[in-house]
Amino acid sequence: DESNVCITMSGTNGLLDVFLALVQPGDNVLLPEPYFPLYPPDVVICGGEPNLYPCAFENGFVPTIEDLQSRVDENTVAILYNFPSNPTGGNVDKSQRDELVTFAKEHDLWIISDEVYDRIVYDGPHVSFLGAGYDKVIMVQSFSKTFAMTGWRIGYLLSPDAQAMLQLTKMQYYVTACSNDAMQHAVLEALMNAADYPEEMCLEFKARRDLICERLNAMPGVSCHVPTGAFYVFPQVDVPGMDSEGIAMALLEGGVLCSPGTAFGELGEGHLRFAYTTSREDIDKGMDRVEAVLAELRGD
Amino acid sequence: DESNVCITMSGTNGLLDVFLALVQPGDNVLLPEPYFPLYPPDVVICGGEPNLYPCAFENGFVPTIEDLQSRVDENTVAILYNFPSNPTGGNVDKSQRDELVTFAKEHDLWIISDEVYDRIVYDGPHVSFLGAGYDKVIMVQSFSKTFAMTGWRIGYLLSPDAQAMLQLTKMQYYVTACSNDAMQHAVLEALMNAADYPEEMCLEFKARRDLICERLNAMPGVSCHVPTGAFYVFPQVDVPGMDSEGIAMALLEGGVLCSPGTAFGELGEGHLRFAYTTSREDIDKGMDRVEAVLAELRGD
Repeated sequence: DESNVCITMSGTNGLLDVFLALVQPGDNVLLPEPYFPLYPPDVVICGGEPNLYPCAFENGFVPTIEDLQSRVDENTVAILYNFPSNPTGGNVDKSQRDELVTFAKEHDLWIISDEVYDRIVYDGPHVSFLGAGYDKVIMVQSFSKTFAMTGWRIGYLLSPDAQAMLQLTKMQYYVTACSNDAMQHAVLEALMNAADYPEEMCLEFKARRDLICERLNAMPGVSCHVPTGAFYVFPQVDVPGMDSEGIAMALLEGGVLCSPGTAFGELGEGHLRFAYTTSREDIDKGMDRVEAVLAELRGD
Repeated sequence: DESNVCITMSGTNGLLDVFLALVQPGDNVLLPEPYFPLYPPDVVICGGEPNLYPCAFENGFVPTIEDLQSRVDENTVAILYNFPSNPTGGNVDKSQRDELVTFAKEHDLWIISDEVYDRIVYDGPHVSFLGAGYDKVIMVQSFSKTFAMTGWRIGYLLSPDAQAMLQLTKMQYYVTACSNDAMQHAVLEALMNAADYPEEMCLEFKARRDLICERLNAMPGVSCHVPTGAFYVFPQVDVPGMDSEGIAMALLEGGVLCSPGTAFGELGEGHLRFAYTTSREDIDKGMDRVEAVLAELRGD
């Protein structure tokens, strides 16, 4: 009911509320790497330490329980999961989700579940960390992706734990007092009059994903995981003697904007992130350019 | 220029940015008492300690330099001034402002100047802490009061110190990433098409202030300072054997909503805060009720 939700001024704002409420100096929080760039500084702002766990390409960008076990310690208060993931597009199936929930339960950790891409999932329904048999879960949500209203800065927090919500709502009061009423009306309009929009966009994103993955995987030196969610691909791109920042700069000069994998942590080295938020026609044009630039750089 | 300003999602949001940027664990910040209720918890959230200085009725709610001198120590990093003040309506003239700036300068303190009521000032122009010969000043601003758009959550920070603004803008990024573009357009509309509105409202507020002060000061046991800014009065109200919370509750039962002074810190005991944000007709009606309730409570 309404005691389980708190409207925030963006997912970003919601994340800060959560870290402010959970993290005391000396605590650490398990965070995925590659990561959405706000996670580590948010934890530092709250006096805590980021405790990074790897989400490796080889494992579909899902962490292994062994990697988590080797990092958790007595000062770990929470673990952040971000599926579908920015930047990797990585996602979990139900059995992976259950393992990750069990891990958190065993160590009595709060799960912070950033599910802002929950309406952009392909090849099956979204797998949420809410309703998975564990109540110490706080879901971070945003309307930015759902209704393509990024600049409108509205999202929400949701938890089955009413006591946690009470603390989060207090924290929201200190951050912006309340959220913007005009934007709440805008979201209501979207929910009532554009309920089909997320599904339509999702079909389009799926076609774009298929296109960009096919194009990338056809290029020498490029290996791209086919993501089941979000609107990013995070291919391994190999150009001997160049790091991902150098490759990204060369592609920019060639007319394509992408992010070097290292923008999302050291583990991103060797990867590039492409956001397929443009038309299929433009994706095709962009991939022509990527192909040409990489062929030249690699001397293929 | 634009490097001296950062748009925030409310004055509240701006305040948190400032404290997050300035306060490290172990630091303290000089805060006025009675205070806007967010100041002390904001400092605590950032790991610092509120260091309260009195703004006494006898002194027109302006602090004395002696009181500030006796409280500042080697861990004090900043002093917050709030003129015109919520809750007291207290305000400074130029010579008082200069003394307060000199004090901050002597101790190398940042001045955090909450001037959200700068367009609601009577009996003379607004006296700002910006442009007073000291650059370690961060002004917290909001459009909530200027254009009566409280629920729209938009404000800004301003400082002559470009380096400080860079840090504050970074902090804003971690709080809400950016502000809402729709609301920025709304403010532009207001600035272009309702530029006269703040002055018109100010004239109306002045008439209300005159009315409410006259009414209050005519009541036995009530003594009200005539504020030169904001839309609050903070009278001393004496009912033998009752504290300000009890009096406020009795007035609420009698049909008038006001805040007990203790909502703004212990120093508020003995005071009530009335917001004169309603019509003169309603103020008159409300004051009739206050008069009747107090007469009964005091047995006059």
